[in-house]
Amino acid sequence: MGEEVKSLVVEEEMGVVESKEWYLVSYAPHGVPTTDHLKLRKVRLSIAPESIPDAHVAIEMLLFSVDPYLRGRFTGTLDGLYFPQFELNQVITIFGIGRVKRSNDSKYEEGDIVLSASFPVAEYCVMPSSEIDAKIDAASGISLPDYLSTLGVPGFAAWLGIEVVADPKPGSNVFISAASGGVGMIAGQLAKIRGCRVIGSTGSDEKVRLIKEEFGYDDGFNYKKEEDLDAVLSKFFPNGIDVYLDNVGGKMLESVLNHVNKFARIPLCGMISQYNQAWTEREGVRNLLNLVGKEVRMEGFLLKTHFNRFGDFAKEIEGHIKEGRLKPKTKINFGIESFLDSLNSLFSSSNIGKVVIQVNKA
Amino acid sequence: MGEEVKSLVVEEEMGVVESKEWYLVSYAPHGVPTTDHLKLRKVRLSIAPESIPDAHVAIEMLLFSVDPYLRGRFTGTLDGLYFPQFELNQVITIFGIGRVKRSNDSKYEEGDIVLSASFPVAEYCVMPSSEIDAKIDAASGISLPDYLSTLGVPGFAAWLGIEVVADPKPGSNVFISAASGGVGMIAGQLAKIRGCRVIGSTGSDEKVRLIKEEFGYDDGFNYKKEEDLDAVLSKFFPNGIDVYLDNVGGKMLESVLNHVNKFARIPLCGMISQYNQAWTEREGVRNLLNLVGKEVRMEGFLLKTHFNRFGDFAKEIEGHIKEGRLKPKTKINFGIESFLDSLNSLFSSSNIGKVVIQVNKA
Repeated sequence: MGEEVKSLVVEEEMGVVESKEWYLVSYAPHGVPTTDHLKLRKVRLSIAPESIPDAHVAIEMLLFSVDPYLRGRFTGTLDGLYFPQFELNQVITIFGIGRVKRSNDSKYEEGDIVLSASFPVAEYCVMPSSEIDAKIDAASGISLPDYLSTLGVPGFAAWLGIEVVADPKPGSNVFISAASGGVGMIAGQLAKIRGCRVIGSTGSDEKVRLIKEEFGYDDGFNYKKEEDLDAVLSKFFPNGIDVYLDNVGGKMLESVLNHVNKFARIPLCGMISQYNQAWTEREGVRNLLNLVGKEVRMEGFLLKTHFNRFGDFAKEIEGHIKEGRLKPKTKINFGIESFLDSLNSLFSSSNIGKVVIQVNKA
Repeated sequence: MGEEVKSLVVEEEMGVVESKEWYLVSYAPHGVPTTDHLKLRKVRLSIAPESIPDAHVAIEMLLFSVDPYLRGRFTGTLDGLYFPQFELNQVITIFGIGRVKRSNDSKYEEGDIVLSASFPVAEYCVMPSSEIDAKIDAASGISLPDYLSTLGVPGFAAWLGIEVVADPKPGSNVFISAASGGVGMIAGQLAKIRGCRVIGSTGSDEKVRLIKEEFGYDDGFNYKKEEDLDAVLSKFFPNGIDVYLDNVGGKMLESVLNHVNKFARIPLCGMISQYNQAWTEREGVRNLLNLVGKEVRMEGFLLKTHFNRFGDFAKEIEGHIKEGRLKPKTKINFGIESFLDSLNSLFSSSNIGKVVIQVNKA
């Protein structure tokens, strides 16, 4: 992607835009990524009609979806997540929404709002139209950030975890970690819609209040204030845990395993507490024997494996949104400059809801 | 059971047998169980016709099945396995085969060979006939030890792990730990019958030779001689692991997780390396993130949940035995005195195949 972008930088004044873009300087196997790893650069990009190749479009980026999986795309190792690695010196790519500025493909015209899972993290780009995943219907009544939240990466992850992998019955005891995050806030609401009892853990008292008052969780706790996770789980789950949607791994997963019920399901959505260490430095889970005694199924899942279910997902979620059953919360950061801080905010428990970057005005 | 046995001890010389039996003195939460925990005592038991209550039978025990799960029945804690605990001062119970000596139930007559999952570990007993699980057909052509091996606890565990939980395709790369043990020897053969490539780990060079020459494993290694499990798994699984039947847990499970393929299945049959420690002392598994990146399903299972499949299992296995495709190996220890040593031999990697105790001559 990056090479194409650069090759299109021309010096004509007419139809040329300045575009800032994030590219990979070096891999960050462990620790918090910094500007030693990801850097912003400015390029000049022609979006004049004659410089758009056949079957290409020029896009003005509007919104980017900032998700934890991105961390796994520039570790330079494959340990654990096995995501394809971004290439050095190339612009990194991301899920987002853009507006078509120029089109050399009859399927798209200027002003179309489009979604792609592989937009460059840039203000503008010229890209093959085949990389567009969907056109957004302006008359849908659904807000653009919703397409990156309830209808986007975290929504699809939450739906797969709750509805496909866990599939809880009404009345099941459901526990969700990172409960106020992008996935957690949606997963909790989906489990409530199914009639489950839903408890969440999150990283501040304010977020505990929020998951109860805005996302409809039955209860929740601030794990940072709890010294004894076993005790707090005993308190909130006197009848045990039937479903644990794991977003964090490590000690929380270990504690949950001491409280699982017979035939519990543990969809593994991610393990955000463990992404910034080498695997040998990660917290070992010592009580996996509970999986035997309680006949528990623990199962990892990735979104792309289930893309054939995206239509079912979107249909269900659109219904929930339109009937007011599903209320996402979005943290919007402004300007492409905010990308690195936005990404790191996912790991510091400092934000609420889905993190989105607004690059240009919609 | 024990109280009934004792209440039936009478002093009549006619119809009275001496019977030695193992009973629980104290729970053994950790470590190797000793005669501090399990003790042998001698009782006198009347098996005269008039002392057999209605719907009861007197049984002369022939064979006992010694299986790792027994260790979980006298820890006095529920950590991990959650098996019902044997009661203090009571005779412990076990899967075995006995011969009916007296019957006060028209369904059974003297000489019948019967199976039960809850025989007392005794030389003789009087028990309700409702506790008999099956009568063995002497004309079946199947040896009695086979009913405790391929057709018993380890056979059913192996069948559930391979055929029900893992369900591998022909050509799948299958790894089995404790490969020469009761479960492993059968699981390996079942996976070979399915057309898989099967590698086993076991605890001596002699057992490596055995799993290849007698059980048909494609290859195997002696884990005690390997300092670097990752390296040895790389060598034996250049194309990764599709199915791991885990009988041991701990470091072996952790190493396997670094070699799993996309959508691998890990049926958790048991974790024998971890039974003699408190859970906080067990080996932590640090790389569960692989379950996410490789979308692996790890799932514990217990036999009693699947008893509705026992008929399917027995029919398939009898076919394999009669056509010579499944060849078990049995280690027979003689005399009820050998019970404690037989049980401990399961944890010291000192035996090959299924461990059975022969109490009286069949």
